[in-house]
Amino acid sequence: MKIIKLNLKNRSYKIVVGSNILEALGRYIVKLNIGKDAYIITNAAIKNRYGARLNKTLKNAAFKVKFRLIPDTEKSKSIEIASALMKDLASYDKKRRIFILAFGGGVVGDLSGFVASIYKRGIPYLQVPTTLLAQVDSSVGGKTAIDLIWGKNLVGAFYQPRLVYSDVNILKTLSQRQLQAGLSEVIKYGIIKDPDLFNYLERNLKSIFNLKTAALEFVVARSIAIKAKIVEQDEKEEKKIRTILNFGHTLGHAIEAASSYTSYNHGEAIALGMLLAADLSQQLGLIDKEVSLRIENLIEAAGLPTKIKRISLPSIIEAYYHDKKFIGAKNRFVLLKGIGRTKIVEDIPLKIIKKVLKERIV
Amino acid sequence: MKIIKLNLKNRSYKIVVGSNILEALGRYIVKLNIGKDAYIITNAAIKNRYGARLNKTLKNAAFKVKFRLIPDTEKSKSIEIASALMKDLASYDKKRRIFILAFGGGVVGDLSGFVASIYKRGIPYLQVPTTLLAQVDSSVGGKTAIDLIWGKNLVGAFYQPRLVYSDVNILKTLSQRQLQAGLSEVIKYGIIKDPDLFNYLERNLKSIFNLKTAALEFVVARSIAIKAKIVEQDEKEEKKIRTILNFGHTLGHAIEAASSYTSYNHGEAIALGMLLAADLSQQLGLIDKEVSLRIENLIEAAGLPTKIKRISLPSIIEAYYHDKKFIGAKNRFVLLKGIGRTKIVEDIPLKIIKKVLKERIV
Repeated sequence: MKIIKLNLKNRSYKIVVGSNILEALGRYIVKLNIGKDAYIITNAAIKNRYGARLNKTLKNAAFKVKFRLIPDTEKSKSIEIASALMKDLASYDKKRRIFILAFGGGVVGDLSGFVASIYKRGIPYLQVPTTLLAQVDSSVGGKTAIDLIWGKNLVGAFYQPRLVYSDVNILKTLSQRQLQAGLSEVIKYGIIKDPDLFNYLERNLKSIFNLKTAALEFVVARSIAIKAKIVEQDEKEEKKIRTILNFGHTLGHAIEAASSYTSYNHGEAIALGMLLAADLSQQLGLIDKEVSLRIENLIEAAGLPTKIKRISLPSIIEAYYHDKKFIGAKNRFVLLKGIGRTKIVEDIPLKIIKKVLKERIV
Repeated sequence: MKIIKLNLKNRSYKIVVGSNILEALGRYIVKLNIGKDAYIITNAAIKNRYGARLNKTLKNAAFKVKFRLIPDTEKSKSIEIASALMKDLASYDKKRRIFILAFGGGVVGDLSGFVASIYKRGIPYLQVPTTLLAQVDSSVGGKTAIDLIWGKNLVGAFYQPRLVYSDVNILKTLSQRQLQAGLSEVIKYGIIKDPDLFNYLERNLKSIFNLKTAALEFVVARSIAIKAKIVEQDEKEEKKIRTILNFGHTLGHAIEAASSYTSYNHGEAIALGMLLAADLSQQLGLIDKEVSLRIENLIEAAGLPTKIKRISLPSIIEAYYHDKKFIGAKNRFVLLKGIGRTKIVEDIPLKIIKKVLKERIV
């Protein structure tokens, strides 16, 4: 078991990573002194599989427990569902000290954190992520959000959880594709900050796919330690430090949107986005071909896409501009100077962006 | 003109108080460097009266201007209206740098601040309050909120504005009753922190009711300076420092709710709540009758109620318990040790609370 501390003064919290630790969660929460009533937001599949164990550890630690199910789809990140949850919370909230426990993947985590951030101007919440993607990324850092039809994550808040508790044993029931999607973000941490992690992945992908506990624990803890350090320095993404976490996300988001969030999941789209960012870095002379190839080989070995299929160049460009309108006039990319070294580059000519996209579209 | 600085590190801002200063607002906003597109949330009456002047100063400073009207009622502080505004913002938000300008009283300010706090995880907003109550209280301090049917301000965020700009000349079109409601909070600042302000009010109420510019400027600036100092020390009400601003609000809110927000407006209910808090202080031997009487005389001279009419004791007690359920098991009152000196007292026996209420009910 590994414990990583995320230091943000009076908003600091622990990130616990271990295997078969769900049973110990109740005791951890007691120490936080955040209330007596656990309001658990999750979905039906996760509740069916792990609800009884979660219920037991909380009851054993003398918490009252209420489960609330949301549909297992990005559509749950809506104003309507957030609003229904808050009304439910308010009607339940009689002489209680409620905290929210987000038990699920990114959708559950983003939505739960947002509700926790605005109900009574903020009540405590915990993240108990159940996907690799959520364990290595969205559960940590306090970015909470819901979507509007004009764009994903358009409404939200920076609001930190009081504990993140990742049991890698839960990952063993994930599909291969979900595991790969999470790996995409793990690869990202290696590329932007940690050549040793990158090397490790090159040598140990098999252990991860074979769900070896030690390998899963290692990549989750290592990834989240990198993210924690970045969030500590730039919690609200104001200093261009947290920006590097967006590596691969500019064109990745455009690909995700252009495919209407169907052909590629988030991790797959980010894998393509990272390759394109590497291609751009090469085009601008920041890295040589050898580095690009190492990245491409690792992404391919992880079972992630390296070519863009069934999406046209114009539709990606259109989605890219749509996304950009929410950022401002200039474009801004996180590019590479090598494995583990990034450079933020602005105002890349559209011609070059189109060129690298074309070469990946089949 | 007076400028008060509220110091909260990178969230510090100025509170400008003056007369006939609306025309200079555009130039002030330019200096903030917060965007080019002013999204003004207001109501029809205020827009009809002052919209053209606001539009002109913004246009002269090269801002684009969009007015959005909300109904002039507490009901506008709803999830539905907040959600409609955010959807409107998102559809308007094409290659823009938007900031929100709240132009109105407490309803407009609370709602606008809340929308600004969660749209894109926070965009800049300004408060241009148009009632005495909003100028001396709700526009400053970053408490934003909307209501649920279970309680007022149940959903919200702590989110500071980038500028508060109070033109006391706008107060000259307020009704006598609106002016009195604002005075109630001014009296509160005198009672909890500032014997000199209390003395000033005892001697100068007439100048205020006669809308003398100097008197209005003085009370607004003096009140807000007190609030700013308190907010600087305890922004999120975590240290029992900001708590003293709730003087008169515990039973005041209960009276407001028990009258279904009809017989008494907020200021009037708070006036009654302050008298009851003084009564409790006297009952507990913290102040003598003379102090209570000075407070009662000032409240009466300000045209505010000193007796509770047409509301039964049981309905106030019920509303009080309903409100309390959201705070926790113990009750907590801000009481007085004298004019300008407070003491937080917990667990006051219900018997004593009922006693002081009974004596005020006619």
